[in-house]
Amino acid sequence: MSMRHRPALAQHRGRSCHLVMDAIKGKGEQGMQNPGGQVDRPVGPHFLESMLPKVVKRRVHALKRLQVQCANIEAKFYEEVHELERKYAALYQPLFDKRRDFVTGTVEPTEEECEWHSEREEEEELAEEVKEKAAIEDAKKEEAVPREDPKGIPEFWLTIFRSVDMLSDMLQEHDEPILKHLKDIQVKFSEPGQPMSFTLEFHFESNGYFNNAVLTKVYKMKSEPDASEPFSFEGPEIIDCEGCLIDWHKGKDVTVKTIKKKQKHKGRGTVRTVTKQVPNDSFFNFFNPVKGEQHTEMNDEDSEFTLAQDFEIGHFFRERIVPRAVLYFTGEALEDDESFDEEELEEGDEEVCQHKHHR
Amino acid sequence: MSMRHRPALAQHRGRSCHLVMDAIKGKGEQGMQNPGGQVDRPVGPHFLESMLPKVVKRRVHALKRLQVQCANIEAKFYEEVHELERKYAALYQPLFDKRRDFVTGTVEPTEEECEWHSEREEEEELAEEVKEKAAIEDAKKEEAVPREDPKGIPEFWLTIFRSVDMLSDMLQEHDEPILKHLKDIQVKFSEPGQPMSFTLEFHFESNGYFNNAVLTKVYKMKSEPDASEPFSFEGPEIIDCEGCLIDWHKGKDVTVKTIKKKQKHKGRGTVRTVTKQVPNDSFFNFFNPVKGEQHTEMNDEDSEFTLAQDFEIGHFFRERIVPRAVLYFTGEALEDDESFDEEELEEGDEEVCQHKHHR
Repeated sequence: MSMRHRPALAQHRGRSCHLVMDAIKGKGEQGMQNPGGQVDRPVGPHFLESMLPKVVKRRVHALKRLQVQCANIEAKFYEEVHELERKYAALYQPLFDKRRDFVTGTVEPTEEECEWHSEREEEEELAEEVKEKAAIEDAKKEEAVPREDPKGIPEFWLTIFRSVDMLSDMLQEHDEPILKHLKDIQVKFSEPGQPMSFTLEFHFESNGYFNNAVLTKVYKMKSEPDASEPFSFEGPEIIDCEGCLIDWHKGKDVTVKTIKKKQKHKGRGTVRTVTKQVPNDSFFNFFNPVKGEQHTEMNDEDSEFTLAQDFEIGHFFRERIVPRAVLYFTGEALEDDESFDEEELEEGDEEVCQHKHHR
Repeated sequence: MSMRHRPALAQHRGRSCHLVMDAIKGKGEQGMQNPGGQVDRPVGPHFLESMLPKVVKRRVHALKRLQVQCANIEAKFYEEVHELERKYAALYQPLFDKRRDFVTGTVEPTEEECEWHSEREEEEELAEEVKEKAAIEDAKKEEAVPREDPKGIPEFWLTIFRSVDMLSDMLQEHDEPILKHLKDIQVKFSEPGQPMSFTLEFHFESNGYFNNAVLTKVYKMKSEPDASEPFSFEGPEIIDCEGCLIDWHKGKDVTVKTIKKKQKHKGRGTVRTVTKQVPNDSFFNFFNPVKGEQHTEMNDEDSEFTLAQDFEIGHFFRERIVPRAVLYFTGEALEDDESFDEEELEEGDEEVCQHKHHR
């Protein structure tokens, strides 16, 4: 099992010591409970610190100053990791370009490039089972569309959008014909010396919906410790995002819908019907807001939820979907995520439901 | 909020597609349920792949070959990250050495080195509240032990062991007097060219329990994709560990206890009492097994649990405790872990309990 992932570890943090603090701070009933049964432990954290003899407290403060220096060094470490990521992005790019060419059908892979042996026995067994069915299906298809082979891998990205819950939650029926024109998704990292960020580029073939060849979403990151809270630094984090303006063809904007509304004239009492444009559910809302930092206008709690979701989706595109798209297309990555998830959370399904994306 | 952490994302993996597979593979009732309400989705992953027209399947195989190449590049990336970690370990070391010297009292920090302003208002309020109490306590202490200032920061590491659940679960009463002699914990990374590993070094001052000045635990890592499962590669993972032999003073080994057992003579029927040494709960079992890969002898399920726990503890020492020890001493890191945990898991307390360490 992989032990690289911190959150699993965070599950084992010391709760007992906090009960003391919670009780002092009046944080509610929790402080009165005793889930760990650890009453007889020495006093809690800050409390303990306050109770230390002055000479010792002095030394603890010295350690804290060292800790701030550590956080500053750590920030430099993460900058170098970002540089490494830029360096490796360039190494992956030729492979991703090939992927795009195979997906769009611009280039046909050679025999050698297609050689593939399924190592997993169960896969092979399954393959046996469905081979017959598939053969029949193939025959049917070839009958139905004779001599017209599909170009590249049809609906490659759309299939991924359908398969990954985080994305399918955003996907609407009217988005699907548009996403059939999605050719590629790329991640671009900010240049050295620039504020740290990454950009998701959605490349489209020319289509009947909008004029843009590329839709972009920029995620801005913060990569240094906060002066007021240096110890909370855990590496770069997404702090803001910025979408782009979609140049929709007339009447093709799926992010708005026209509703009819009856209006009563105050004086005369006559009723007339007016049409009004209102926001519509769509994946393409992902490119809103066009400018970052507009979200403060929204309901506070609501906007925080949406932003957290948005950052998570951006991160997921960058870390998972783009680097291993084919595995989301075939479903292999979904299996990995699932078994991984089970390992981390065990009976955590309720959590998953709570985190679902509602728009 | 930080979006660096994958497991949070994994919560959003596509479950719907798996239901098809689960049903096919006969994985139980789950396949019959429909939690996502997504019946009308296109067919599931491998299944989908099998149903593709041959020409398309060929191209998907080409993408898979590209994906294997990506995994190999990724392995090189993680090797470079390991190198970066080695480089930064050297930059942190002078600060950690200072920490050790302040903790043990070998060096007294200067006035400048101790300057510390508490930025958080609530902390200051709290400080006011307890200042009086503390003053009284201080007075009492000075009365009780007049003219004898404590050396360094007494019980620094022991306090951390007591505060962090993952460690306190292992901690026994008889371990505490021994851990009072723990001077420092260091992490050492494997040299370049060597198989990837890290070593935890527990440095002790001379004590009445064992002769070792340093107890070590090596964690061996695997940093390249598995040939049979290249897509499951997610970066280096701990694959094995190796403790060390503790040279206990006679009768001081807390990892064994002597029990008395009544033995009945088969023929004569007389009863005699024999003494027998049996394993005893102790943190110092952490240095067992002395040699790696002995665990196969154990009960399979049980040993896997213990190993997973052990790897997690090793990782936690490396990633959290050693780099930010003072914050675990004061409790600040516990708060961070907790709020972090709440963000990730929300009502996940039950999970935490399930993951607890039982020996």
